[in-house]
Parts: sequence; C-alpha cells; structure tokens
Amino acid sequence: MSNPTLRGEFTGQDDAGTLFGVGLGPGAPDLITLRAARLIERADVIAYPTLAGGASFARSIAADLIPSGALEIAMDVPMSVERAPAQAAYDKGASQIVAALKSGQDVVCLCEGDPFFYGSFMYIFARLSNRFRVEVVPGVTSVTACAARAGMPLAARNERLSVLPGPLPAEELHARIAGAESVVIMKVGRHLTKIRAVIDDLGLMERAVYVERATLPQEKVLPLKDAPQEAPYFSMILLTKGADPWL
Amino acid sequence: MSNPTLRGEFTGQDDAGTLFGVGLGPGAPDLITLRAARLIERADVIAYPTLAGGASFARSIAADLIPSGALEIAMDVPMSVERAPAQAAYDKGASQIVAALKSGQDVVCLCEGDPFFYGSFMYIFARLSNRFRVEVVPGVTSVTACAARAGMPLAARNERLSVLPGPLPAEELHARIAGAESVVIMKVGRHLTKIRAVIDDLGLMERAVYVERATLPQEKVLPLKDAPQEAPYFSMILLTKGADPWL
Repeated sequence: MSNPTLRGEFTGQDDAGTLFGVGLGPGAPDLITLRAARLIERADVIAYPTLAGGASFARSIAADLIPSGALEIAMDVPMSVERAPAQAAYDKGASQIVAALKSGQDVVCLCEGDPFFYGSFMYIFARLSNRFRVEVVPGVTSVTACAARAGMPLAARNERLSVLPGPLPAEELHARIAGAESVVIMKVGRHLTKIRAVIDDLGLMERAVYVERATLPQEKVLPLKDAPQEAPYFSMILLTKGADPWL
Repeated sequence: MSNPTLRGEFTGQDDAGTLFGVGLGPGAPDLITLRAARLIERADVIAYPTLAGGASFARSIAADLIPSGALEIAMDVPMSVERAPAQAAYDKGASQIVAALKSGQDVVCLCEGDPFFYGSFMYIFARLSNRFRVEVVPGVTSVTACAARAGMPLAARNERLSVLPGPLPAEELHARIAGAESVVIMKVGRHLTKIRAVIDDLGLMERAVYVERATLPQEKVLPLKDAPQEAPYFSMILLTKGADPWL
C-alpha cells in the first residue's frame, strides 16, 4: 500500500520514510488492532498529540507497546475555540515529523479512535499526504464502542445513523435529531445541559443513553436522565428511536 | 464485564457460558483487535453467518485464528427482501448457541465489521441478551476503513456525518444528501445506478468516491464517476462536501 489512490501520485523523495496514521480505538489497550500493535511495537519514531503539554490519551492507550528506545514527538495541542493555536501546534509537529521522514525513518502517529473520524491525525495528513508516503490504519471508533457497552444496536437493515457534534447550536440539534433515526452525539462535555434539554423537549429522554470513557476502567453507562451534571470531553449520547427494529 | 448496564440484570442460569459478539473489522485479518483475536484463539464454540449455505465472509476474516478443534455453528442466512426467512435462520442459530451456552461453554459469534453497526450479531443479541451473559467486542467498521483507503477524512471539529443505506428510495437519498455534510452510503450493491443518478443530480459527482471490498486484496478505490456498472454488496460511496475543512 502506498498513498491512497485518490490523493495523487507521491512526488517526494524516494528514500524518505513512511508516515503511518494509526487508530488506537476507544481506550482499552486490547481494542487496538493487530496491525496497529505491530506498527507501534516496531516503531523508531512515535508522534502523538498531548493536551497543552499535559497527558496524551493516545499515548496512554498504546503505552505498553511503545519501544523504550523510540524517539517520541509530542504535539502540544491547545484546547481552544480559536483554530490558530492548534494549527500552529500541528505545523510544529508536522515539521518534526518531516525531519524524521526525510532522514529515512518511518513515523507512527498515534490517534485515539480512528484517524479520519474526528481524529487529530487529519491535521497532519492534510499537511503531509502529498509530500510523503502515508498509510492510514483505521481504528475502532468511540461510536461503536459506546454502543457495545450500552448494549444498544445502532443501525440495522435500512436504518439511518446521524453523527452530530455536541457543540452544535440547540436549534440545529433539535431539528437534526427530530429528522433522524439513530443518533450519536459526540463531544458532549460542557454541552450536556443544552443537549439534555433538546432531547427532553423532543420527548426522547427515555431512549437516550449517556456513556463516558467507554471501555476504560472509569467508564460510566447511564440512562441520560441519570447522567452526571458535568461530563468530560470524551462522553457521548446514543439515541435510538425504533421499537426493537432489529428483530 | 457482564451484561451491559442497561439491558437489565442477568437472570439466566449461573453456570451457563458467555456469548461474545465479536467484530472482526472490514476484512483484512490484521484489522482484528487484540481482544477479538484472543477470544477467537481460545474459543471452544464459534458461530457465524453464511450466505445461504455458501461462504462466510466473517469466518474467512478470522480463519487463521480459529482453533482446529472448535465446534462451528454456521447460520445459513438467506439474502432476501422478505424478513421471515432470515429470522428463521437466526432462530435456528440462536437455538444451537443456546445449547452450547447451557452446557457451560462460551460461544464466540463472529461478525464482519462491528456487531452493532448493520451487523448480523444484532439478531442473536436480540434473542439472547436477556437470558445469557453477553459481551460485545466492537470492531473497525467499513466506514472508517473505506475512508482510510480513499484518503478521505470523514468529519472534523463540528461537522456532521450521515450514514445512509443504499436501498433507500431515490427521493429520500436526494433529500438527505442535500441536507448533509459528510455522507457515507452503505450497501451500495445493485443500487449503484440509482445512487449515482442522485449524486449527479445534486452536482456532487466530483466529490464522491466509490470503494469496494476495502482492505481486501480485491479492493477498488475509484472516483464515483469511474465506478464499475455492477457493484458488490460490500461496496460504499463516500461524499464530503467541505473544501478541505480540516485545515
């Protein structure tokens, strides 16, 4: 496998390394794929985002697989509504990754969940995919992990599934949930009160489930009506409207 | 982990086995998770769907991991628009699984992709989850696998993602794609001509990518306008409308 078919021909230096964007799944280390595990175990250079210099969730998932001698590139990504600070962090990370690739080393970039599903690797991919060989290793998303832990099938047969980010305005969430079948609301965090009011207004509270840190030891799975007042960033609401439609 | 929190207490026989619904990912054997691989390697009883007595895609993904002595329960699920024949097949499969569970054996039920995302395991889960301990192991879905292979990030920041089944009527597909951001159309198969006409009519042909058998040796990734006239069941169309919104 080389660059994905549709991104055009690889035009960079032939002896440069390959950049791997590796999905790690929702958090439990054994929900890493065999392919991702092998890549990490053999890596010379590992890159990952950290929260403003603090801990890296991605690194923590893969910690037991990272070789002790690997060079680590930590990208300190600030959590802010403004985009410029994060862009600068990805610019800096990309330049460090480029230095390793140009020296002929492969780089394994770690990403919680899946790299192309709200994943930080997209920002690195956008900067480097036309200059270097890139392979993306898909991972288990938090969506299906939350469904598994809640015991809630998401979609069967000809059902639709809508994935909505929690930061959307209340009016938009209201309209989109009203027209949907199964709904997954990502990035709940500080938007929990707003989202809960929308779902209550739609009369769907009894069908909504709250999941926090799915597959981790601190996991919580609760009916939305019993959810805590404060939700972490890694929390989700699942909503299915059918009457056992999978039977 | 025992039964998911929200399915009520387990009330079955205490010495019965546990049913594992195991997602295998999109097709490449090394996109199986570490957890799924370990469960399969240690399984005494393996269950999986087959297409009307023919091959089992799920079994083929996991073939190298299945112990030679394992008892195998093949569920011959007919491909038909009517639901009764498939329901009968799942009834029969469930009764064979029940026999093994009651004898104290664990059963690993294989499922391509993710068990709760258009997965056959949902039908077994619906029949048995209130009578036996059930654990669902999420898998990599074809959605993110196709995106990885196409080099197409699906959703970033506050973008929405709509998953639509290809068998939906043309009018409904038209309306839902028109109102969407990123779109994934599943189960394209014999609906390809209809879907292509809808996307063409919306002026979105240049943004649509066709992916068939993602991550398998026979994989195809093509602009939708160059897709073949006939598509297999395991094919998908990805459509992103933003102008590099992830930068």
